[in-house]
Amino acid sequence: MLSPASILHVFTPSCPICATALTNAVVFILLDKEVKTLSYEAYIPMAEKTVQALITEARQKWDDLIHVAIVHKIGDCPVGETSVVIAVSSAHRKQGLEAVHWLIDELKVKVPIWKKEVYVHGGPDGVDGGEVWKANNAMP
Amino acid sequence: MLSPASILHVFTPSCPICATALTNAVVFILLDKEVKTLSYEAYIPMAEKTVQALITEARQKWDDLIHVAIVHKIGDCPVGETSVVIAVSSAHRKQGLEAVHWLIDELKVKVPIWKKEVYVHGGPDGVDGGEVWKANNAMP
Repeated sequence: MLSPASILHVFTPSCPICATALTNAVVFILLDKEVKTLSYEAYIPMAEKTVQALITEARQKWDDLIHVAIVHKIGDCPVGETSVVIAVSSAHRKQGLEAVHWLIDELKVKVPIWKKEVYVHGGPDGVDGGEVWKANNAMP
Repeated sequence: MLSPASILHVFTPSCPICATALTNAVVFILLDKEVKTLSYEAYIPMAEKTVQALITEARQKWDDLIHVAIVHKIGDCPVGETSVVIAVSSAHRKQGLEAVHWLIDELKVKVPIWKKEVYVHGGPDGVDGGEVWKANNAMP
């Protein structure tokens, strides 16, 4: 299970690099809901490349970012479990907050990840088998 | 020690209320830096009242907020330890991100909390004893 705590640890004093440099950390956590299970699939090499490009672009847009971590779950993700964690630390809070907002919006649109929604009582619009594949940015 | 994890637990599936309602959680964590120790003092009754008023105002501004948690450390806060955690969950990520940004900015300006900076090698501008009290919004 993807745990926000596993990401947060790099933003705490137990990480010697951070202890003197870090002031603000913004963590965006996306939990799944509404359906029984989501299952994510990705074109991994392109997804990793795209995420790296987004981080590079974010560092150009906001020049005081310190750490940037993005983790996306692939495979089954039951309702209520975390599917995405984006964590950014920055010298000034405004930049960190703006960067996290931009990163989740861009990730949803640009990173090649798709999700299959498995419904408890069948899917919408008469979908057979109670499953439907959607673009990752379909919601929310 | 104020732990982000202690706040995050209300945003996880172990909280039955959240499990079906929650999609997005935004957590802002402010860690202290630059000085040996910060010490916070607050006019507690007014601070609690002001924080509650900010939460009420945030819920009016962004009507799909689900959970809002704000915790501020009072007393000594060594470098690298968390002094503030603001956590918001919302049905749509845009509102949650905007609300967290607004809440930390408003908290810094409006909540009656002051901080004493204790310097390793004495304070700036020849401050005796290496300590100086500042308004909470002095930085960063």
